[in-house]
Amino acid sequence: MTSLKDHNSAGSDRVVISVDAMGGDRGPAAVVAGISRSAKLNPELDFILHGPEDDLSKLVAKRRILDGRCTIKHATDVVTMEDKPSQVMRHGKATSMWSTLESVRNGEATVAVSCGNTGALMALSMIRLRKLPGVNRPAIAILWPSRNPQGFNVMLDVGADIKADAKDLLQYALMGTSYARNGLELKRPRVGLLNVGTEEHKGRAELKDAHDLIAANESKGQYEFVGFVEGGDIPGDRCDVIVTDGFTGNVALKTGEGTASLIGDFLRQAFAYSPLSRIASVLAYTSMQRLKKRIDPRRVNGGVFLGLNGTVVKSHGSADAMGVSSAVKLAFELARSGFGDRLAARVASTAEVDQNALGQKDLNTK
Amino acid sequence: MTSLKDHNSAGSDRVVISVDAMGGDRGPAAVVAGISRSAKLNPELDFILHGPEDDLSKLVAKRRILDGRCTIKHATDVVTMEDKPSQVMRHGKATSMWSTLESVRNGEATVAVSCGNTGALMALSMIRLRKLPGVNRPAIAILWPSRNPQGFNVMLDVGADIKADAKDLLQYALMGTSYARNGLELKRPRVGLLNVGTEEHKGRAELKDAHDLIAANESKGQYEFVGFVEGGDIPGDRCDVIVTDGFTGNVALKTGEGTASLIGDFLRQAFAYSPLSRIASVLAYTSMQRLKKRIDPRRVNGGVFLGLNGTVVKSHGSADAMGVSSAVKLAFELARSGFGDRLAARVASTAEVDQNALGQKDLNTK
Repeated sequence: MTSLKDHNSAGSDRVVISVDAMGGDRGPAAVVAGISRSAKLNPELDFILHGPEDDLSKLVAKRRILDGRCTIKHATDVVTMEDKPSQVMRHGKATSMWSTLESVRNGEATVAVSCGNTGALMALSMIRLRKLPGVNRPAIAILWPSRNPQGFNVMLDVGADIKADAKDLLQYALMGTSYARNGLELKRPRVGLLNVGTEEHKGRAELKDAHDLIAANESKGQYEFVGFVEGGDIPGDRCDVIVTDGFTGNVALKTGEGTASLIGDFLRQAFAYSPLSRIASVLAYTSMQRLKKRIDPRRVNGGVFLGLNGTVVKSHGSADAMGVSSAVKLAFELARSGFGDRLAARVASTAEVDQNALGQKDLNTK
Repeated sequence: MTSLKDHNSAGSDRVVISVDAMGGDRGPAAVVAGISRSAKLNPELDFILHGPEDDLSKLVAKRRILDGRCTIKHATDVVTMEDKPSQVMRHGKATSMWSTLESVRNGEATVAVSCGNTGALMALSMIRLRKLPGVNRPAIAILWPSRNPQGFNVMLDVGADIKADAKDLLQYALMGTSYARNGLELKRPRVGLLNVGTEEHKGRAELKDAHDLIAANESKGQYEFVGFVEGGDIPGDRCDVIVTDGFTGNVALKTGEGTASLIGDFLRQAFAYSPLSRIASVLAYTSMQRLKKRIDPRRVNGGVFLGLNGTVVKSHGSADAMGVSSAVKLAFELARSGFGDRLAARVASTAEVDQNALGQKDLNTK
């Protein structure tokens, strides 16, 4: 239990990630396998692992790479996928999820990673880490495979909140810009606002307000605003950051995942159709692996909760070792780039600008 | 110009489709090529074709299969993709789109087909064909490739109106059920209401009302209500009809199309990567064609406008001959099955039930 301290005292360039070992569909073994994979790839990475101490000690002991790099924090309870967020908020103190966030809250770790229940994780993050000054609604951002040179676009919100008014959407634009700058290394990300039809007369009234507000903050926010975009632009190259409310974003995300999965199944069926097509499938194997690598959701695993005092990465509930390792890699990159502090600074500076620039117009009213 | 009448007098089993030759990205030649393709496949099919008479006569004269089966109605103007719906409603009387709808309005044809501007086509359809009694908002329904045995699910609304209240969503459930019964030959379609998360406590308030209303009309509407579904269920097998508002539906549709197109590009790049993968691509050709056939948007081309006095099929603006032919095939099947009358009867019967069943609760309030 003292191992981590030794490491930390050895040098300040070490990065500590707080990891929830429980709550994923594949149990703690997949999580421990995932973090050892990450430990191999990134020597400056340490972990605080949360869950039942006896079980976790055995799993960690089997991985030599984790020796001296993984502190275990005991937590008896687990948040299940069926638990309601409100229950977890009231009765969840003994859960591994609560403990995972606590390590970020008290500064022991920079970023938290969990494969557990999204609703509960967001609710706990809100009460334990609290919202950044100036942020009304936190958002969940994901990376979406795209035609852009960087290979991915940022989309938010994909489900933190089902509503978003014009000012929330501006904050999403700012937070998404910060994420694209730190996660995708884009200096001046192009931001698009999701709508139906790209003409200005179309779409909902609140989107017109958001359009004007995001356009007005373009230079201050250091993004380029391309205006309204459509569903087809999410995997496209018209912009790098797609801004929308959490209802629309969640439907789009799941529709995209479902469509990709359906095409994958059709592809397998097409290759299994006849003896000749099965021979073709053997020869096409490396091409197929190349394709799979580009769209494999395990390789872009991790929704990032933005707008809180601390960064939380939500991994897929069904993540295997590679999935967990991808989520940890993302957490590591965000921690190392000082993303949390930069995001806070940006939101704070622009929150002032809004007030000044917009004067009387009360955009806080819902 | 008398050819069609001769045909009609010869037997009442002939089906007449009114086709807008103009307004598509590929011009009238693609439309005429498309209808001749359909004419070959369906001997009982006749056409009324709308557009500049001189141009169309020449194109039609080249296709022997259309001889005596295609009446041309002269229209000088064309609705472009840039025209605003409001302008077309005021000044569009001389357009081929207006003329196309007129043939359905006066009973010369059963179904209209156009590749033109969706917004203008919906606006003109609303004022010229008028809404069915009991329908508040018409909807656009599409067929989405799915894991179900019938190969497709029905989704609506994909963009007729950006709003929908609980009662509109019930009407979409009824209209979608009618479409699934006539278009996919399902006796008792399963209906799902699109939401985020499938638990009852999630999602927007209007969706909870819609949930109760659709559940209450299950036996009268002759569908099975599976409750809330998510984006991943649109191409899935949990239900056959997915009901949502036109904003969410349009974003989902375009996200799905964009994702499928991106995967197609990645697939081509994967096969073009090395000499070996190019050899593999030759052997995999038939498998790839089999896949393409299942997800090719040209083969499921046609959004259907539901809730009007008359059926309108909107083809993709970029439709080629095969795309136009698919839209005509859909129009033909709907015309032959007496879909329009059946839908009207169903909506009318359930409109009464709503009023009775729900009593005081005023669902017309928005």
